This record gives sequence, C-alpha cells and structure tokens, in this order.
Amino acid sequence: MKEFNVIEYFFKAKSIQRKDVIIGIGDDGAVTHIPKGQALVTTTDTLLSGVHFLPDTPPHAIAQKAIAVNLSDLAAMGAEPAWISLSLSLPSVDKEWLEAFSNGLQQHAEYYSVQLIGGDTVQGPLAITITAQGFVPFDQALTRSQAKPGDSVYVTGTLGDAGLGLAIAQKKCLLDDQLNTDYLLNRLNYPTPRLMVGTCLRRIASACIDISDGLVSDIKHILKASECGATIHVDKLPMSQALKDSVSSSQAIDYALSAGDDYELLFTVSEEQKGHLETALASANVHATFIGQLNGAVGKLELRQADKPYDYNVKGYEHF
Amino acid sequence: MKEFNVIEYFFKAKSIQRKDVIIGIGDDGAVTHIPKGQALVTTTDTLLSGVHFLPDTPPHAIAQKAIAVNLSDLAAMGAEPAWISLSLSLPSVDKEWLEAFSNGLQQHAEYYSVQLIGGDTVQGPLAITITAQGFVPFDQALTRSQAKPGDSVYVTGTLGDAGLGLAIAQKKCLLDDQLNTDYLLNRLNYPTPRLMVGTCLRRIASACIDISDGLVSDIKHILKASECGATIHVDKLPMSQALKDSVSSSQAIDYALSAGDDYELLFTVSEEQKGHLETALASANVHATFIGQLNGAVGKLELRQADKPYDYNVKGYEHF
Repeated sequence: MKEFNVIEYFFKAKSIQRKDVIIGIGDDGAVTHIPKGQALVTTTDTLLSGVHFLPDTPPHAIAQKAIAVNLSDLAAMGAEPAWISLSLSLPSVDKEWLEAFSNGLQQHAEYYSVQLIGGDTVQGPLAITITAQGFVPFDQALTRSQAKPGDSVYVTGTLGDAGLGLAIAQKKCLLDDQLNTDYLLNRLNYPTPRLMVGTCLRRIASACIDISDGLVSDIKHILKASECGATIHVDKLPMSQALKDSVSSSQAIDYALSAGDDYELLFTVSEEQKGHLETALASANVHATFIGQLNGAVGKLELRQADKPYDYNVKGYEHF
Repeated sequence: MKEFNVIEYFFKAKSIQRKDVIIGIGDDGAVTHIPKGQALVTTTDTLLSGVHFLPDTPPHAIAQKAIAVNLSDLAAMGAEPAWISLSLSLPSVDKEWLEAFSNGLQQHAEYYSVQLIGGDTVQGPLAITITAQGFVPFDQALTRSQAKPGDSVYVTGTLGDAGLGLAIAQKKCLLDDQLNTDYLLNRLNYPTPRLMVGTCLRRIASACIDISDGLVSDIKHILKASECGATIHVDKLPMSQALKDSVSSSQAIDYALSAGDDYELLFTVSEEQKGHLETALASANVHATFIGQLNGAVGKLELRQADKPYDYNVKGYEHF
C-alpha cells in the first residue's frame, strides 16, 4: 500500500534531512545507510487513545510522547537514534489536529536529529505506532540478560512523577501548588528519553531497561533474563521535590515503585565497572541513584525499608 | 513500553532464527547486522479490519496478507526482505484467533526467510501494523523517480483478480464456477509479493511500484515522481482466465485498471535495457507484460483501446 497523502502533506516538508537517508518519504520504502561498524537497533511501540494517553491530551504532546517512548527503548539498548516510521490511525482528517501533531513530531524529531522516513495512515480510532531505528557499535548493545549477582542497581532521574501526573490529569488528585502540578503533568506528557545515559553506559552497564510500566514490573524483566534476584531499598528511590511535597511518604514510594511512564533507565553495574560509571555519568552530566543490589535468588524481588521487609503485596499491587 | 507477553507467548518460539539477528524478541529493541555493501530498506503498512480486510477473513489469511503487502513494498524497491516488527491491536486476547494468526504469520515469515524481531500489542479494534526491513546493494534500489519518456511500461502477473475476489467476498457477485471463485478469493486473501522480480529488475528497471491501489492510481505516482506521462493500451492488460470467464470484457478492463490488492509490480524499462530484461525475466522464470509507453506529457495518463481513447472518466472513476 502507498503512504497516503496525509504523510506527504503534513509531515514531509517539515522533516529534517539526514545524510544517511538516500530515499525518504514518498517511495514504496525508505533507503538508508548504516555506518560502518554499527549494528541496527529497531523498536516499535503503539500509543492508543484512552489507553496510553488521555483523549484530551494535546496533539503536540501525543506526538512527542510517541517519539519519546520509542527513543527511550533505543536509549535502553545504548543506541543512538536515526530514523522513525509512523503509522497513524485517525478517526478523520482533522487539519488543525494534524498540523499540531506534525509540528510536535517534527520538533521532537529535529531535537533528536531523527528523520521521519515513511509511514501510513488509516481511518480508525486514534492510535500512533512508531518504529524507531538507531545504531550501536557491534557487540556494545545493552541488554537485559547479562546482569550478575552482586551487581549494583541504579536508576536515572526521579521516579513516580508521571504516575502522580496521571492522577492529576485524571482529576483523581488536585494539588494546591500550581508549579508542582505543571511539573508533574510535564513529566507525564513530555517524557525525556535518556539517550545520553544509554550511550555512556555502553561497556559499563551489565544490563539496562527503561521504566515504562513501573520499577517493580520492569526490573523483573532483567531478573528473568539474567536469572538473578534483587534487593531494592525503597528509602533510596529517587523522588522529585514535587512528588514529596504533594503526597505522603508511603504514597510517594508506591508511585515510585509502581507507576509507569517515567521513562528513566534502570541499569546494573558490576563492582569492577563502578569507577568507569562515575566518570561516564560525570562526563555526561547525568545523575543516577544506587537503589539496591542483585543476588542469586532467581526471580525474587525483595523490597526493604530501613532494613525491614517492605510489604508491597498487601497494598494490592501485583506481587512479583 | 515493553512488548506484552502476547508477542513472546504466541510468536517467539515459532520464529525462525536468522544469523544476522543478534537480539530478537524479548529486549527493549532488536539488534541486527546489515551485510556489507547493502543499504537498508524500511517500509510500514497497517491493515485495519473492515477497511483492508473483511471482518470474517480467516486470521491465517490476515497474517499472511499483512506480511505480503509489506514484502511487496520491498519487492518494488528491489530489496531482499530480512526482518519484520509487528504491532497488533486486538479487541481481546482470543487464544484460538492468536494461534491461527501467529501460525499464519510464521509460516509466511519462514517461507520468505524473514524473522519477526519484535512487536507490541495494545487492546483496541483489530489492526495489524508491520514494519518490514530488507537490503538492497548500494545505489541499486528501484525508485519511482528515474523513469524517462520513451521507456516501456510492464506489469507482472495478471490484474483485476483481487478486485473481483473482493466483490465475491462481499457477496456483490456470485460465480457459477467454484474453481474460478476459489482462485479469485485466493488472489484477494493470499497475495504473492513479487520479490524475485524485484531483485532481478535491479539495474534494469528505470522505475518500479507495486499495484496496491489499482493500476491507474499507482502509475500516477511514477508519472509524478519521474515527471512523465503515459499511454496505456487497455487491450494489453494481462488478465487471468478466471477474470475473463466471469465478467464482461469491459468489466474485466475496469477491474484491471482500478481494483487494488493485486500486488503485482508495474515497472518501466528503457529501450537499451530491454534485452537485459528478457534475460532477467527468463532466468527468474517470471512473466511480465508490455502495456504501454511513457511520454513527455507530464502527469497525463492516456488510456487507449484498439487505437481509440478509452473513456475511463465517464465510468465514474477518479480522473487522473
């Protein structure tokens, strides 16, 4: 099937032109060049209205989130992003919506030097599927499967902000403080893929994943793939002042443990690599927080608070 | 976002393992290697229930069509397919449907030596988005833009079968002959991407496109991109015996001109390359039919029958 005029009309002219794109939007497929010595990294994510974003989310934010969640997957692989393809399911061709969406998409694509190389539109419920492609040097991709017992567990940034942001957007929670409200809604609607951290963790991290479904959900993918267990200290979970100001300490921990959409990276580092980690994070001007340690209790996640077990299960979350 | 268990549970074990896939399903992204001297070709197509296939189409056929339409785009670029990513929007997790769909997908993927490297599932109306990736030697991709006035126009296979197949599936048409009915429904539900032709046309065809929306619709993309016009002789359009047996001669021409879903290749060849074309088609054991010629009347498509203009417009189709 051909790309419909929507892609050419709204997106083509705005797209940046990378030198490694030989043929972009407007043919049966895109033709691109991979740099020598690099492997290709590919990831796909779909955002559906009402499931992955609220129906009243501004189109600009939807576009940027659709890019960000895909680039976050590339970041978790240690990859540098290059190209995206877009499949857009739209209830109707709403010109105003498409202008705002395509502007948001292209602003974000330009910011990350990513070129839209093709796409498809269909008439249906609002959904955005992006396939992102990037590079990583041969044998330097970060995976989920190479962590070892004894490795330390880190996360970038702060956790739980997008979770509280969602509660605010859903009007389940109303904060007095407008600055905190704006900050938390921004964390929900405009997540930042941790691309710099991802690339600087190459050869340093033993495993890496992005936190899209919540810390407890996502760390289990590493534990499963690497056949390890983990102890996480909930007191060490990094939280923003906005989150701490807005809810009780135990609610904040719950958001940090279980809320998705933060798109921070969780990664593991062996004892020998810790020196390199500090240097790499400093040179990238990025902060990561130590939150726990891996062990040999395969598949078990132990949460501790002030050296006592932290009872997560009774709070009604899925027990791992 | 992580790939949901649906992809791992129903698809991973069935997938073939290509040597150029370093990391497949089950991490934040797939890692693959591009052979030396090859450019990457990427294409994306979405099939939505009720739009691109009838809701009662067997899941096996939906899966195979979703692969075929994407591989057909790669064929039109002269590319060899390698990997696919799958985004699946499903109303519910219907195990029986998913077994049949994943079996169909993997059978077809295996047939074309294509590996499923990742995906995503969301809950929503039935829709399948596939991103297909393949290779083509540097500077040998077939495009829409390099055709010249004087080049001859060819199509592979026969045209119009899928269009009549759709009319049968929609119960707008009932044939007496069961063999013809089966043949035409198969042409609708199980299109064959013309991969062999695509690769053998490298360095020979001046332009190429796959016919997904109908000959008249699709040739205009070449005319626009190459700044040419064309004269097409409707008497020369290749048609199957099943189509000719089933409808009047003028209806058959209409199906061949305007019905989509045939996924044959339309390509152009300069006078100098015609000798090479014959050799290439013979060695690939493929038939292609000469149907007309390009000229300098930019953007004009002239249809002729027995040396008289063939009046397409009055039949109510979109005039080009």
